[in-house]
Amino acid sequence: MPLLGLLPRRAWAALLSQLLRPPCASCTGAVRCQSQVAEAVLTSQLKAHREKPNFIVKTPKGTRDLSPQHMVVREKILDLVISCFKRHGAKGMDTPAFELKETLTEKYGEDSGLMYDLKDQGGELLSLRYDLTVPFARYLAMNKVKKMKRYHVGKVWRRESPSIVQGRYREFCQCDFDIAGQFDPMIPDAECLKIMCEILSGLQLGDFLIKVNDRRIVDGMFAACGVPESKFRAICSSIDKLDKMAWKDVRHEMVAKKGLAPEVADRIGDYVQCHGGVSLVEQMFQDPRLSQNKQALEGLGDLKLLFEYLTLFGIAEKISFDLSLARGLDYYTGVIYEAVLLQTPTQAGEEPLNVGSVAAGGRYDGLVGMFDPKGHKVPCVGLSIGVERIFYIVEQRMKTKGEKVRTTETQVFVATPQKNFLQERLKLITELWDAGIKAEMLYKNNPKLLTQLHYCESTGIPLVVITGEQELKEGIIKIRSVASREEVAIKREDLVAEIQKRLSES
Amino acid sequence: MPLLGLLPRRAWAALLSQLLRPPCASCTGAVRCQSQVAEAVLTSQLKAHREKPNFIVKTPKGTRDLSPQHMVVREKILDLVISCFKRHGAKGMDTPAFELKETLTEKYGEDSGLMYDLKDQGGELLSLRYDLTVPFARYLAMNKVKKMKRYHVGKVWRRESPSIVQGRYREFCQCDFDIAGQFDPMIPDAECLKIMCEILSGLQLGDFLIKVNDRRIVDGMFAACGVPESKFRAICSSIDKLDKMAWKDVRHEMVAKKGLAPEVADRIGDYVQCHGGVSLVEQMFQDPRLSQNKQALEGLGDLKLLFEYLTLFGIAEKISFDLSLARGLDYYTGVIYEAVLLQTPTQAGEEPLNVGSVAAGGRYDGLVGMFDPKGHKVPCVGLSIGVERIFYIVEQRMKTKGEKVRTTETQVFVATPQKNFLQERLKLITELWDAGIKAEMLYKNNPKLLTQLHYCESTGIPLVVITGEQELKEGIIKIRSVASREEVAIKREDLVAEIQKRLSES
Repeated sequence: MPLLGLLPRRAWAALLSQLLRPPCASCTGAVRCQSQVAEAVLTSQLKAHREKPNFIVKTPKGTRDLSPQHMVVREKILDLVISCFKRHGAKGMDTPAFELKETLTEKYGEDSGLMYDLKDQGGELLSLRYDLTVPFARYLAMNKVKKMKRYHVGKVWRRESPSIVQGRYREFCQCDFDIAGQFDPMIPDAECLKIMCEILSGLQLGDFLIKVNDRRIVDGMFAACGVPESKFRAICSSIDKLDKMAWKDVRHEMVAKKGLAPEVADRIGDYVQCHGGVSLVEQMFQDPRLSQNKQALEGLGDLKLLFEYLTLFGIAEKISFDLSLARGLDYYTGVIYEAVLLQTPTQAGEEPLNVGSVAAGGRYDGLVGMFDPKGHKVPCVGLSIGVERIFYIVEQRMKTKGEKVRTTETQVFVATPQKNFLQERLKLITELWDAGIKAEMLYKNNPKLLTQLHYCESTGIPLVVITGEQELKEGIIKIRSVASREEVAIKREDLVAEIQKRLSES
Repeated sequence: MPLLGLLPRRAWAALLSQLLRPPCASCTGAVRCQSQVAEAVLTSQLKAHREKPNFIVKTPKGTRDLSPQHMVVREKILDLVISCFKRHGAKGMDTPAFELKETLTEKYGEDSGLMYDLKDQGGELLSLRYDLTVPFARYLAMNKVKKMKRYHVGKVWRRESPSIVQGRYREFCQCDFDIAGQFDPMIPDAECLKIMCEILSGLQLGDFLIKVNDRRIVDGMFAACGVPESKFRAICSSIDKLDKMAWKDVRHEMVAKKGLAPEVADRIGDYVQCHGGVSLVEQMFQDPRLSQNKQALEGLGDLKLLFEYLTLFGIAEKISFDLSLARGLDYYTGVIYEAVLLQTPTQAGEEPLNVGSVAAGGRYDGLVGMFDPKGHKVPCVGLSIGVERIFYIVEQRMKTKGEKVRTTETQVFVATPQKNFLQERLKLITELWDAGIKAEMLYKNNPKLLTQLHYCESTGIPLVVITGEQELKEGIIKIRSVASREEVAIKREDLVAEIQKRLSES
């Protein structure tokens, strides 16, 4: 360890105290575990950095800053999404960024290890929220709310291996809409699908398809194929990977890693190839294996009703009953769905290509009951718009087209060709601001006129007002259109009215 | 420890392994420290809870959920604040919720212990952001940005003793506006004060005052009074408490806890009572002690220029030069300011009462350089609106006045007195949604008309469309105004146009 020779005395002491800890629970006890050594080295590095302050300036792994360019695209997309949620009568709400660790434990299945925990600083054990659904269920139970239609836009955090190229980060935004309450079957569920269609159409991302299935059909299919009940959730997780992995590899995972009998896997393989419209629902009612399973029949019955409502909503042709859809999270109990964008086929007759999930959701009737001391249930159904994926797609398209966005909304620039004219510019811009007009000027006593005009062109400000000694003497002011470079002189006292007239015309 | 008898075997094992750890570095070694025992007990309790899932359902200490009622008030206030930032040409941006711990270390002075650290899960050492200013400075240095006017609205986290009664939480929202770049003196600084005035006037919170001072005047005053330079920041922290503590107590802290000579404290005491307008600036230029100090003179010169610009902005009467203003954070280097609301005096002649700070900021010319490998500086000045305090004041006022807010924006409700009329309602509401109209209906096959109308009244929906067999047969539909209870029949095909007409009139 040649590194240690460079450490100051206090850092040495800290490192030693770290190394003197006993091995962690997951070690054999004979050898100190890698993570402890890594932690000790890290701590000592941090101490060293403090004394020599040339550490690397960066954002944490898997995270990034959002520049003004990003923010403009996001604001536009989020506005459209939130408008749709409000059009459907949803209320807004928010929850803390972190929850008690117990609140999140055992809600997410195989993914639970990806939670960010907070350091124990002598208080409660806390973790950053992993999605917005579990906090919503906790909120309902805690406040004994039996009925609520809400949306929630907020950040969530997952310690996944970041693959930044695909636009996946460890910190990302979720946009959720959920309907909690005991209602007649499939009416809120159908509305969730309607909302997904409205948003995806509104965003003009191209053609899309929403795959629909039901957890009871998935479980019924597993039972009918001979999967032991104890393996249901594990096999469900494997099936969920079918959109990223070939059947061959998923089959291998189920048989080799999860101990499923090969003939059982093959029976599942027959089902997960099936997708279609309401006619496939009818067909599955007749399926010799599924029709024997009570759960599967319940799911099929609900799907049939769902398709009836989707037809009335005018969106049935966007929906595909797909037996390969399983959804990874543990808490779903009924209908589940996932929207995918379809790339335009390159040649006629080709199958449309799946370019990834952009929205998903489902019914979770048991989650709220997990937080209620008496286990009282509140049935829920909801959806999450994959806005990060959508931000990424829209940004890529703009890049391809060479589109630029304005990152400010400034309408008027206050300029002068005159030296020592700061006072007059300050008075002018005050008038504009006080009238609610978005205005800027340069923070210089004597800027050059060319610099001022160039600033307007590069930032897209449409209008310039120009003043100088001559104008001041004559009681006039000039308004210049940046695009046409035309200038007109108006009376000084008409400034605000003239600007407002021009802005309302454009 | 009678508790332990109740623990399941696995929890026992975990507790034992915790107790067998050596004492932490801050202990004497002889006795196990309190925090380790507390941690071990907590861990065992968590295990126990998992097996008996009746843990307390709550939000973490010092945090809370934001209900739809809260969100409506927030949205309105944030809209006004952000509009003002945009009116002054600011761009939006965002940074991750957490930063490398090193990024935040040694930026906040005495408060640094209040940071939330993330658990070391085998990666980088991370902390939740403590404000939006340090991440902004890190962003500028990392991207070598030399000039930027940006706003940032986001959550920050501080492990303060929460005093929930006063509306202070450990998670709270900050709204910052900053101008980075090398400009002519005091022009951006004056704009920051103008923005504070526009926002506080716009929010109609009542009369307010902005206290202004300069760190160079504070330091000059300390030097002139005989404070040793090594104690400048510590004494500054004490002075910062003058808005919450009496001079007597602040003096005690400086003398007894921070080792200041009593006569030095008394000299400071004379200055911190001074406040006034630009005439006080002139007076301080003549002060026998301050006028000997180069730093103080620089600060006074800048304040004089600042007042000139504030007069042109029409806000000079809102500003008070106040020698007791010090600001707690370490990073300020020049002008500092803090806005306070003034309660209406109960009797003529009484001094207006300070009800707390609602906005603050200042100049920090050295912070960006701390992140630059070569120490290149980017001068910055900015402000933060204390929106949590403002949310609280507005909510309290609404409560006092008995004002209620609508938490949804629904414009039209689709109702029927008829049984088995779900299909028609679904078709109707689809038409409304597809026309961009905000519409709701009950998720029941056969809701009672009274229930439907009651829902509209209780949630403030202004219009109801009512359909039934008779209406369907005649090709008409009824529109009902919830407020007046008037109903008119219109042609079915005119529905959307008629609704839009009524909504644009209201």
